[in-house]
Amino acid sequence: MVTPVTPQTSDIVVIGAGPVALFAVFEAGMLGMRCHVIDALDVIGGQCAALYPEKPIYDIPGYPRIDAMALIDKLVEQADPFAPDYHLSQQVLSIEPLGEWASDGWRVTTSAGTVIDARALIIAAGCGAFGPNRPHLEGIEEYEGSSVFYMVNRREDFRGKRVVIAGGGDSAVDWAVSLSEVAARVSVIHRRPKFRAAPGMAERLKKLARDGVIDLIIPYQLDRLEGDGGGLEAVIVRDLDGAEMRLEADALLCFFGLAMTLGPIAEWGLALDHNHITTDPATAQTNRPGIFAIGDMARYPGKLKLILSGFSEAALAAHAIHPLVFPGEALHWEYSTHSGITKLES
Amino acid sequence: MVTPVTPQTSDIVVIGAGPVALFAVFEAGMLGMRCHVIDALDVIGGQCAALYPEKPIYDIPGYPRIDAMALIDKLVEQADPFAPDYHLSQQVLSIEPLGEWASDGWRVTTSAGTVIDARALIIAAGCGAFGPNRPHLEGIEEYEGSSVFYMVNRREDFRGKRVVIAGGGDSAVDWAVSLSEVAARVSVIHRRPKFRAAPGMAERLKKLARDGVIDLIIPYQLDRLEGDGGGLEAVIVRDLDGAEMRLEADALLCFFGLAMTLGPIAEWGLALDHNHITTDPATAQTNRPGIFAIGDMARYPGKLKLILSGFSEAALAAHAIHPLVFPGEALHWEYSTHSGITKLES
Repeated sequence: MVTPVTPQTSDIVVIGAGPVALFAVFEAGMLGMRCHVIDALDVIGGQCAALYPEKPIYDIPGYPRIDAMALIDKLVEQADPFAPDYHLSQQVLSIEPLGEWASDGWRVTTSAGTVIDARALIIAAGCGAFGPNRPHLEGIEEYEGSSVFYMVNRREDFRGKRVVIAGGGDSAVDWAVSLSEVAARVSVIHRRPKFRAAPGMAERLKKLARDGVIDLIIPYQLDRLEGDGGGLEAVIVRDLDGAEMRLEADALLCFFGLAMTLGPIAEWGLALDHNHITTDPATAQTNRPGIFAIGDMARYPGKLKLILSGFSEAALAAHAIHPLVFPGEALHWEYSTHSGITKLES
Repeated sequence: MVTPVTPQTSDIVVIGAGPVALFAVFEAGMLGMRCHVIDALDVIGGQCAALYPEKPIYDIPGYPRIDAMALIDKLVEQADPFAPDYHLSQQVLSIEPLGEWASDGWRVTTSAGTVIDARALIIAAGCGAFGPNRPHLEGIEEYEGSSVFYMVNRREDFRGKRVVIAGGGDSAVDWAVSLSEVAARVSVIHRRPKFRAAPGMAERLKKLARDGVIDLIIPYQLDRLEGDGGGLEAVIVRDLDGAEMRLEADALLCFFGLAMTLGPIAEWGLALDHNHITTDPATAQTNRPGIFAIGDMARYPGKLKLILSGFSEAALAAHAIHPLVFPGEALHWEYSTHSGITKLES
């Protein structure tokens, strides 16, 4: 086995940096265990930080109301005495067992080349990685990134181009209106007459269509792509009766929403239940010894997708991991009101 | 069946008013259910309020540190929109099913004569009722309250009396020193030479013994009582070799610490495990349909006695009770970030 870098070591690797992951760092720390935390996002806080930082949450026990980012700040502060190492902007690509036994631990390798050996893994990856819903078109991979896109990085990239936009939500409508100002031609394909977009923007789209600036191709669906070597030549669409239309195009933008995906986690041999990881409710352990799952991604009988339930699962996992990190040592565990906080060396 | 008062009605009766009980009120309220809350203490907050209001807690998620009473205040505020009815200073003495079916609910009667009919009960009684550890002396009940006591209400009650104090902790030592100023005679019985008391007070006790003000009867244990009609005449003590000593006495004070007891709950036909209530970890339900148990008193595989675990159990119980209160209605449940709080009518 070739290892490109000397592995770092940790008691626990926590995959995900959302609220439940952060509380797992605290609970592990209270039991004397260090954590490395890995997240694909470039910020700590998971969805709370990335998707709705200012949204108020009402069901965190002891907080009649707290904004999502404020909760994250508190949890980071609570985890801080236990000196977690954060590895952001990277995804865990692979895990491999370090030996035959559960207590031998796991080696984790990330997309940034970070390698960490740990006694136990806690998967606290929330709803998983978010990715675009991709249309099922034969050979679409060949075009992705060169002429088929799921997001717009720079509007200028589409100047003078014939652009086909597929979808009926806010993103499709907003970008159709916006790109109509720079593109040679914008066509919008939607399978229904009604758009699920902000009413004002939907009206602007319809006006641009009436004025002949944008083509509304409704109700049509994508059927196939024509082109060569990643260069798109035309998008073939089809109505409900099977009638085809051929739209010459330089670029196709698909806005079919985001879907959660387990990503690489799906390949780790974990028992799954409808895209969630099956866990033992008494320990939060998965079917693979030394790998635990907590928070929204974990499923067991009675599971509620509440942050507060994830907190409780974090405590369970930490207690279940303790004998793996300290084999043979009794857990002299006290209530926090007795023992307070003992910092770990950073 | 004779009912002394017209029963009040509620969706849920919560037994206990500690942090976990309060959060159960919130979770029930989020699902549209009203709670009546009953506690033996005269304050809301359970042990947090009664035993350690100023003690800092470090493991409430999102609070790096919060004093126990401050946590209670927050939880009361969080439960407030759901207008709970609090019934304090009373113990639930009995429960009886209102019909043959689980959904028929339960009638609860308290020591204050409060009668409440509810669809479901949530027992969140923490460590249960605290009571003094009582020595196993034949016929001691006859003397309790008249000449045998487990606490001192008024020091003056012991003026001029011959007092025997049994125990070796803070209470025994503190009261021996204090009562030596008013009593005719104070004797302290302890089964070991060492006192588990604040060193300064233990020294004062020993000095009073050296000065002949207090008799230290060490190492001796209580053996039996002599007296008549509740009036104590003598306390017979015995050393480890069986040698007896007779101490003439008007009053015996026993300070053997507090023990938790389930109290009347033990008589309700609930499956128990070492003084705890066995629950289904998926629902928090006990073996009796419609009766749930959460917090420190509940036990299931993996159970951790943490407040945060009780919060999670409160959410489980509320979700499991919803179909009992709203039979046949689907639970259109949303995240609190979407729906916020909808107050219930008080």
